[in-house]
Amino acid sequence: MLEDKQKPFTPLSKLGEFKLIELLTKHIKHVQPSTKVGVGDDAAVIIPQEDKLMVLTTDILIEGVHFDLTWMPLKHLGYKAVVVNLSDVVSMNARPTQILVTIAVSNQFSLEAVQEIYAGIEFACKKYNVDMVGGDTSSSSKGLILSITAIGMVEEKKITYRKGAQVNDLICVTGDLGGAYAGLLVLQREKVTFEANPYVQPDLQGYEYVIERQIKPEARLDIIERFDSYGIHPTSMIDISDGLSSELLHICSQSNVGCRIYEDKIPIDIQTQKVADEFQISELTMALNGGEDYELLFTIPIYDYDKIRDKSEISIIGHITEASEGKYLINKAGEAIELHAQGWNAFNNKK
Amino acid sequence: MLEDKQKPFTPLSKLGEFKLIELLTKHIKHVQPSTKVGVGDDAAVIIPQEDKLMVLTTDILIEGVHFDLTWMPLKHLGYKAVVVNLSDVVSMNARPTQILVTIAVSNQFSLEAVQEIYAGIEFACKKYNVDMVGGDTSSSSKGLILSITAIGMVEEKKITYRKGAQVNDLICVTGDLGGAYAGLLVLQREKVTFEANPYVQPDLQGYEYVIERQIKPEARLDIIERFDSYGIHPTSMIDISDGLSSELLHICSQSNVGCRIYEDKIPIDIQTQKVADEFQISELTMALNGGEDYELLFTIPIYDYDKIRDKSEISIIGHITEASEGKYLINKAGEAIELHAQGWNAFNNKK
Repeated sequence: MLEDKQKPFTPLSKLGEFKLIELLTKHIKHVQPSTKVGVGDDAAVIIPQEDKLMVLTTDILIEGVHFDLTWMPLKHLGYKAVVVNLSDVVSMNARPTQILVTIAVSNQFSLEAVQEIYAGIEFACKKYNVDMVGGDTSSSSKGLILSITAIGMVEEKKITYRKGAQVNDLICVTGDLGGAYAGLLVLQREKVTFEANPYVQPDLQGYEYVIERQIKPEARLDIIERFDSYGIHPTSMIDISDGLSSELLHICSQSNVGCRIYEDKIPIDIQTQKVADEFQISELTMALNGGEDYELLFTIPIYDYDKIRDKSEISIIGHITEASEGKYLINKAGEAIELHAQGWNAFNNKK
Repeated sequence: MLEDKQKPFTPLSKLGEFKLIELLTKHIKHVQPSTKVGVGDDAAVIIPQEDKLMVLTTDILIEGVHFDLTWMPLKHLGYKAVVVNLSDVVSMNARPTQILVTIAVSNQFSLEAVQEIYAGIEFACKKYNVDMVGGDTSSSSKGLILSITAIGMVEEKKITYRKGAQVNDLICVTGDLGGAYAGLLVLQREKVTFEANPYVQPDLQGYEYVIERQIKPEARLDIIERFDSYGIHPTSMIDISDGLSSELLHICSQSNVGCRIYEDKIPIDIQTQKVADEFQISELTMALNGGEDYELLFTIPIYDYDKIRDKSEISIIGHITEASEGKYLINKAGEAIELHAQGWNAFNNKK
């Protein structure tokens, strides 16, 4: 958290917008065959792929609302801003292909700081084989703003919506839940300690996993790439950005079904459990309402059970019911608790 | 500029993000055959059109940087935010088809104010036959932010880049230039008067045209729709968002050519002229460096001269030269003045 005061500092006001764009984008290479023209004209040009639909999504990250630069490294921020968008593409069962990146910063910001953010963006592009093809740069009136639009492509027969869940389908999640929120709690605690005494170095040992979940999430492209080899095709899918409860309620409402999930089936990492204990919050609450895990929540027909039951990266947490049966979690005591969305709401600024 | 204190006021913090999105988007209808799925899933879904390329562009508007709510009505702001993006699509010679809209506002903002912005966005969508298919909503840490991504489609043989200008091509502009900047000057003057004495109503009579140029610009879709009937196809094209000089230099640099334009050919409206006189700025400076006119600048082969010479909405202002001949304006005294870009630069906040 301590800044290196010796870093070079080139104020953006000395560069101007065109020079900044040139410096940030001159070395960009494209890997997607569908990218015809990237940065440099009035618009990017994409060659649609035969028999494929295009999906488009956009997400904005605003300093002080979605992240805190005292604990979020700039490079990680750039990476995460890309990933949260790719996660939405992946949750349609589509492969991400291009992104547009808009960045707005105070003119007190340095070129070097913007380059750090771009290094993270490029790192994510490289990892996910995505081309950065355009965007906008601007000064902001306050703080840092990153607004990204992601494009993906998918065969029509493979596209997966929120609305396709059927009664008796199995409800599956990838990875584990609640970790990103656990990481946020730890980082916020260390920030308070640091602000009280800047000479105390943060002690993050033993929290590496949950901190990485918060500052360097991944989109589960690896999972959708394996669906074919597993021989499964989800009937519905969504990414878990606002907490399991909220996302499951979206699937239920758009599919017009109910659900029943089981507390003892929800995958929670041991570090998440440890943070939950320290903060005296139930780990179940963290998994249900924490958000920002960017895992996939999907449903598959019950006859596909054998195809995924031994897959370590997928947990079957319950099943879809008739809408009239409601939306319930069965806790470890066997009690049925109605699910409510208490996910992230940017407009009241609390989790 | 006086606010109506009796307007209903529903704080966004009472609604939450999902309810807000529902209220803003529930009545949206789609008109484009390429729109498969709009708002409501993790991503919008677009059906590419056979043999057409897709173009994508994004622009962000930030309160205090790009607009001032003391003189920019919310509905006009929504309209303009769409238009500036469509203008980029049109300048590729493409038809705009869809937009994604991201809006970030302080949680002190009211639902009714956001609905005003959306009314302007929808009005623009209706006028240009564009579908709003997705976006993001968030609270901001300060002020209002609108980030829009626009999508368009164009046959490959018709797409027009900045890079295609050839030596001897004619340089053309649509409409007239400098008006939007003239409007900005008048609005800023009236704001100062109003702040000094709120009981003095602004007197905008005689400035209607230039104010409309500033607060309600249009994308010149009408022009590109007429190219076929004129029998012309531009060799290069760009929209004039940063001033004629800056845009012409982009075309010259990307086409590796020079240019020669003539002061007496540059179309300037009589109201722009009047404002230039009042503010003791040359109208030429306003046309060259003012920006935000959103007219089209394009080049056509010299043998197409007869096809456009009698078109009242198009002015031929000069011609393309060898790169070695430089980039010059010939003023009314017959002197050659080298062109420089002094357009809008968000990072030093001055025109």
